[in-house]
Amino acid sequence: MRQLNIVHNSFDSIYRDPFGAAPKGSHVKLTIEVDHRQHVDKVFLHYIFDKTHEESVKEMDLFSEEHQFSGFETTITMPEEPQLVWYYFEVLTENKRFYYGRIHMEESGEGRVYDEVPPSWQITVYDQTYETPNWWKHATMYQIFPDRFYAEGEIELEKAPKTSLVHAHWENDPYYIRNERNEVVRWDFFGGNLQGIISKLDYLQSLGVTVLYLNPIFEAESNHRYDTGDYHRIDNLLGSKEDFEELIRMASKRGMEIMLDGVFSHTGSNSIYFNQAGAYDSVGAYQSKESPYYPWYTFHDYPDQYEAWWGVGTLPTLNKNEPSYQRFLVQDEDSVIKTWQKSGLNHWRLDVADELTDDLIRQIYSALKEGDQDSVLLGEVWEDASNKTAYGTRRDYFLGGVLDSVMNYPLRTLMLDFIKGDIDAYYLHRRLMTLREHYPKHYFYSVMNLISSHDVERVLTHLDGHLPTEWDQSEREEVIRKQVKVLSMWLYTFPGVPSLYYGDEAGVDGGEDPDNRKPFPWGREDEELVAWYQQLGQWRRKHAALRTGGWNSMAIDGDVYAFERWTENGVDEFGDAVSNETFLVILNRSSEGTKEVTFPARKGKWQNVLNKYVHRARNGKLSLSLQPYEGLVLRHLH
Amino acid sequence: MRQLNIVHNSFDSIYRDPFGAAPKGSHVKLTIEVDHRQHVDKVFLHYIFDKTHEESVKEMDLFSEEHQFSGFETTITMPEEPQLVWYYFEVLTENKRFYYGRIHMEESGEGRVYDEVPPSWQITVYDQTYETPNWWKHATMYQIFPDRFYAEGEIELEKAPKTSLVHAHWENDPYYIRNERNEVVRWDFFGGNLQGIISKLDYLQSLGVTVLYLNPIFEAESNHRYDTGDYHRIDNLLGSKEDFEELIRMASKRGMEIMLDGVFSHTGSNSIYFNQAGAYDSVGAYQSKESPYYPWYTFHDYPDQYEAWWGVGTLPTLNKNEPSYQRFLVQDEDSVIKTWQKSGLNHWRLDVADELTDDLIRQIYSALKEGDQDSVLLGEVWEDASNKTAYGTRRDYFLGGVLDSVMNYPLRTLMLDFIKGDIDAYYLHRRLMTLREHYPKHYFYSVMNLISSHDVERVLTHLDGHLPTEWDQSEREEVIRKQVKVLSMWLYTFPGVPSLYYGDEAGVDGGEDPDNRKPFPWGREDEELVAWYQQLGQWRRKHAALRTGGWNSMAIDGDVYAFERWTENGVDEFGDAVSNETFLVILNRSSEGTKEVTFPARKGKWQNVLNKYVHRARNGKLSLSLQPYEGLVLRHLH
Repeated sequence: MRQLNIVHNSFDSIYRDPFGAAPKGSHVKLTIEVDHRQHVDKVFLHYIFDKTHEESVKEMDLFSEEHQFSGFETTITMPEEPQLVWYYFEVLTENKRFYYGRIHMEESGEGRVYDEVPPSWQITVYDQTYETPNWWKHATMYQIFPDRFYAEGEIELEKAPKTSLVHAHWENDPYYIRNERNEVVRWDFFGGNLQGIISKLDYLQSLGVTVLYLNPIFEAESNHRYDTGDYHRIDNLLGSKEDFEELIRMASKRGMEIMLDGVFSHTGSNSIYFNQAGAYDSVGAYQSKESPYYPWYTFHDYPDQYEAWWGVGTLPTLNKNEPSYQRFLVQDEDSVIKTWQKSGLNHWRLDVADELTDDLIRQIYSALKEGDQDSVLLGEVWEDASNKTAYGTRRDYFLGGVLDSVMNYPLRTLMLDFIKGDIDAYYLHRRLMTLREHYPKHYFYSVMNLISSHDVERVLTHLDGHLPTEWDQSEREEVIRKQVKVLSMWLYTFPGVPSLYYGDEAGVDGGEDPDNRKPFPWGREDEELVAWYQQLGQWRRKHAALRTGGWNSMAIDGDVYAFERWTENGVDEFGDAVSNETFLVILNRSSEGTKEVTFPARKGKWQNVLNKYVHRARNGKLSLSLQPYEGLVLRHLH
Repeated sequence: MRQLNIVHNSFDSIYRDPFGAAPKGSHVKLTIEVDHRQHVDKVFLHYIFDKTHEESVKEMDLFSEEHQFSGFETTITMPEEPQLVWYYFEVLTENKRFYYGRIHMEESGEGRVYDEVPPSWQITVYDQTYETPNWWKHATMYQIFPDRFYAEGEIELEKAPKTSLVHAHWENDPYYIRNERNEVVRWDFFGGNLQGIISKLDYLQSLGVTVLYLNPIFEAESNHRYDTGDYHRIDNLLGSKEDFEELIRMASKRGMEIMLDGVFSHTGSNSIYFNQAGAYDSVGAYQSKESPYYPWYTFHDYPDQYEAWWGVGTLPTLNKNEPSYQRFLVQDEDSVIKTWQKSGLNHWRLDVADELTDDLIRQIYSALKEGDQDSVLLGEVWEDASNKTAYGTRRDYFLGGVLDSVMNYPLRTLMLDFIKGDIDAYYLHRRLMTLREHYPKHYFYSVMNLISSHDVERVLTHLDGHLPTEWDQSEREEVIRKQVKVLSMWLYTFPGVPSLYYGDEAGVDGGEDPDNRKPFPWGREDEELVAWYQQLGQWRRKHAALRTGGWNSMAIDGDVYAFERWTENGVDEFGDAVSNETFLVILNRSSEGTKEVTFPARKGKWQNVLNKYVHRARNGKLSLSLQPYEGLVLRHLH
């Protein structure tokens, strides 16, 4: 039997209006076109409210009949409680029932016909009374792994944790010191410190940085400090509370904000709270069931069998539902959040947000916003944050009142896959449009975009691993340099907050942990690359259109992805006054030969911002010759 | 057929005269008694000169017939070239040929009858024109692993080798940092230095120390510094040449000499000479066949396949026969030996002496003695040094003009085996008498006696490993403490130079490398043990009889070993004027109950030097009650 010809394209406002996420209680008009030559009887819209799993079926109204297609439409009202709404279509013809649904959960847009209940499109229904702070959408981040950025002054060994081994030379490579059972038995430190960051603020400013995200800085045993020993103390080796407050002050003078890594899902086993080795004066949960911290942890067989992050015994898991822990973290007058607010710290990145509860995150969110409406709460989430399910529960991250931002690892994967040739520009476009569709606009412009971090291979090493092994070193380096320029140009012109992982701009390479945590090569930087990132940082700072302007995505051909960024009528996408500008970013990932492309573009002159060369769009089209791995930013000359 | 009854006992001057080693060209009378009831026809002495393998057979003369035994004797002349002479007996009776030889190469004294050619007794024929320096026989050593003894001042990280990781805390335990292939990839340092040793000279003096033996101190990459980078430079982290000369000077003021570890069998791969990684300005053997150092090494496949110590690539082996290396080490005006002589350093411990040639050792010996007759050359030898064979060649260590001393590991093994109950006092006595027989007297009084070193488990840990596993901690500690006191009392009252491995006196434990190289626990010493070692050190300093007095060994019963030390006629064993004193050292290793022993002793009063209690010998016998693990030193009251 012939398949039925049906069209619904969630990206196109002809079919779904308005596009993308919808405020609670708002109306969304859904349209479908069906080939009427098969005698279509009825068309139904099925839609499900995610929180209640309540499914509604609504017959759609025929509103047009043209050529071979009939149009059906209906308008549905979004629930009052923010959540996801899922929908798909059912078409009854004379002799068969057809379904029409989306192709894949990660790929929205057009769907396809199914014989049975298909995957649904997603409408993210959010509470529009919550907005992410506008300043944040303009931010440029720089991520610092504090032990490895810069050490000001002599390292005071006595301030290092007990089991520390300190690298005698900053130029060394980090190393995990493990025993035969693969357990880390000593921690290697380089001795980077807060005064070191203060010393480098001018350098960071030259990169256009406005937010410094610091990996954990509280007292801990390890060099990464994700094993907190005391949430109220800056680690001794890094500096003092005074140093931290000085950093906030000195950064603020340069228009920079600080974001801390909040590790609230677990503590260190050697901590005030657990105190396994008795290193603290406190009575820890490990030491006595009478400990005030005893209910913070879950023991299977007291005291040696307990819940721990990924089973790592040094990281006992906290009970997020324990009221005394919640008070300690959020509500008490000297809670962790409030203590650091008093020092001027308002922004947090929540480590392993999936392991926290939405309830606890909401408490943190409220406390932060109560202190300062411009506070930003960012979560470590590795997937699409709009429909993330963790431990069987759908997470409310982007529905309002939970997070302001997440680490945009999906974008990283897409960028790398595209540049490596693993996916084409058409697929890339659909995937990015899907994210844009799923994320309320405030969030799409607030995510933290990155190509390297402390948890993944650095970009240079990642790219090198995907080049043909027979290529020689200089060939590899030349190609990687071009690829990195394309990727970073993309990062700094895309909606969302670009985040630069310390040292990426200096040409630091490194595979997975610990090689992605090498010391910053002061005095040995790749100066050309530093200059490149400074230029990108300054572009972004200078042009609001690249930050909060509109975004229009397109695949020019399989190898060339492009997007437009613009502001018009003197305002940006969030209503703030800006000057009008339009940019076209064109990213060619093809590896060989000159590529001639022609694509629709506003008429008039477009100037290459790098070499000032001017191209003219004729008959609504722009023709360009692209070199291998060439990225262009063209500015429309009004 | 009945076995023949025969007696020869090399320990007894009735059978062998003189006892023990014999000067070249001297005469040794050998006697054997044979049961003549089996109609003994003839008795032959077979003796072999070790260097030429030349065997002589000499018929022995019947000189007595008493009861059932006939005595046969003959006198042989020792060769003019120092070497070993081997001998055994052949007895012809009416109807059979019997052989009589020693029981085991490590056990001399009485022999047994064999049907075929038996193991021989050994006569060490030495050149009596060489003597070991008398001052040395009076020495008390202290071995220091320089990185772990004491760090004076702040550690200057920039002075540490490239791959160093420095322990942030002196209290930490050392750790080998290895990769998956088990190669050491980083070296852990604590930062002990030469100024640290200078700071502790008063403490060392309180222990009665007169010689400091330092593990290597020349520039190197590792913490043990056996991988020399430059034989002419003190390692930067340890200090300067000036610091070293200051140490020699300051030690000398306190009557202490310094002995250095000479690592002349191999260099580091990262050295001036090999220069694998190009870290030195020199043209190293690895870098070019034109290098002046190229002939120092043996390459199988240039440059990556080369001879190395135990196959460890970081320790390329030196060609000991290469004249340019010999000149560099010994003869040149700025040779290693002469350079450090100019700094006042005269005493060396030769690392892996077995890997050097006797010829090279003789060259070093000559250069040292030429500089100062009182110089001491000590070799790292693990077995009986008198008959050591290495790489198929018999070594001349104790024949004169080669070494003055060796590390007495055989004694260590015997001491530990006895205290643990693995061997009894009778066997112990025979083994010690064997060493005394094999070693010319000068050497027996010059060996370095030790119970711990950087190459073996520390004594506390070794003993602990041999206690019943079911014993609890306090029980173990109590017994080990008693055992250690017996062992150390033994060490400090025995002929030879007692050597204390840094920290043993402070109660430091530790298994094999690296645990036997823990930092000295300043401020956390076992004070009772320190006081005990101070007392032992002072005893030895005070009483010449314990150093260079006569030595008479006896097994009182299976559990009780004893020896007498005495001086008489106002001279010691080497003719130096001393006051007359006699001591009895009685060592009980039995673990349970009071032990009553009676044994021959000089008549008169014997005073326990610890508790001053006086025992009286009656009828030439002394009766004592010994507690478990009790060691006694009794002084004869004239």
